[in-house]
Amino acid sequence: MQTIKFLQQPTSEAWINQAIANLDTILLDHSHCERKAAGVALNLIFRYPSSAKLVRTLTSIAQEELEHFEQVNQWLDRRGIALAPLTPPPYGAGLRAAIRPQEPHRQLDSLLVSGLIEARSHERLGLLAAHCPEPALAQFYRGLMASEARHYGIYWTLATTYFDRETVTQRLQELATVESALLSTLHPEPRIHS
Amino acid sequence: MQTIKFLQQPTSEAWINQAIANLDTILLDHSHCERKAAGVALNLIFRYPSSAKLVRTLTSIAQEELEHFEQVNQWLDRRGIALAPLTPPPYGAGLRAAIRPQEPHRQLDSLLVSGLIEARSHERLGLLAAHCPEPALAQFYRGLMASEARHYGIYWTLATTYFDRETVTQRLQELATVESALLSTLHPEPRIHS
Ligand SMILES: [Fe+2]
Ligand SMILES: [Fe+2]
Ligand SMILES: [Fe+2]
Ligand SMILES: [Fe+2]
Repeated sequence: MQTIKFLQQPTSEAWINQAIANLDTILLDHSHCERKAAGVALNLIFRYPSSAKLVRTLTSIAQEELEHFEQVNQWLDRRGIALAPLTPPPYGAGLRAAIRPQEPHRQLDSLLVSGLIEARSHERLGLLAAHCPEPALAQFYRGLMASEARHYGIYWTLATTYFDRETVTQRLQELATVESALLSTLHPEPRIHS
Repeated sequence: MQTIKFLQQPTSEAWINQAIANLDTILLDHSHCERKAAGVALNLIFRYPSSAKLVRTLTSIAQEELEHFEQVNQWLDRRGIALAPLTPPPYGAGLRAAIRPQEPHRQLDSLLVSGLIEARSHERLGLLAAHCPEPALAQFYRGLMASEARHYGIYWTLATTYFDRETVTQRLQELATVESALLSTLHPEPRIHS
């Protein structure tokens, strides 16, 4: 399997099988992921209100994530799946725990963690596009993939705007190790990041 | 002065004079208001993830507020005003304090408080449109006014979707009293809601 830039380990075959066997749950979880992605971008804007480039680029990411959220919800609606809360997998909390609380580390880590999540989403939406037995849904995943790839590029660019490249590269490697470790055992409940 | 639906007291002449004398600060504060409006809509979506109508309509409000945020930031950019934090006036905290913490009161009050803020924004952007000495900026305010009017209608409709009309009307009156009281003395620093 091809490894996406930034990610240390590719997604396992086991995740693909779990996801394809549970497309409805994956779709509901995906809705939550898009909403959270919008929330994270907006939170960063709130936290760094004076960083013009960050504010501008994350405003457009937040807008796109809300569009994705809307689109996923339309899919749920068409399939008769009611909106509902879903317990998140340990992935998000595990990554957040790796964000160092002191500035400026906090900003660097937050940007890189978001970038890693986008990279993983890009990879997994691509796997869903490749393996989903429903052509229309596969096509939908293919469309989203491209946005998520752009998003991880944006988070990377922001990190290198506010921090020197060597610092960014080294910290990315450390966080990418954490990210892959969090996915090394399959979470029993089907999720985008299980 | 005309009183906008939902609002108990119209804005004072004193606010208009303060705002027009401090257009740059008002514009910077306006940027924060749009960002916060997006944040509040998104938070409500996070809090009530199973309420399909709320999720759908507040997604589109959040998207529009992000567009406004982007547009106001372009105005700041054109005028050479740097993005920067700004101490908020007591208005927002005062309204939040009136939200009862227990559900389902919390949901009702949150929707009505958002509706009141939108109604007041609608009124004040209209006053800026009418009194702003710069035609292009006045035109910009006029354009936003219409959206904010739609927004308070949406919050009202959501409230009456989840609560009976009599409960909504009565609580709105109580909260509108709080809202007007919060603006009855002009905050010394120029703000959209000073
Ligand atoms: Fe997305
Ligand atoms: Fe994304
Ligand atoms: Fe707005
Ligand atoms: Fe609004």
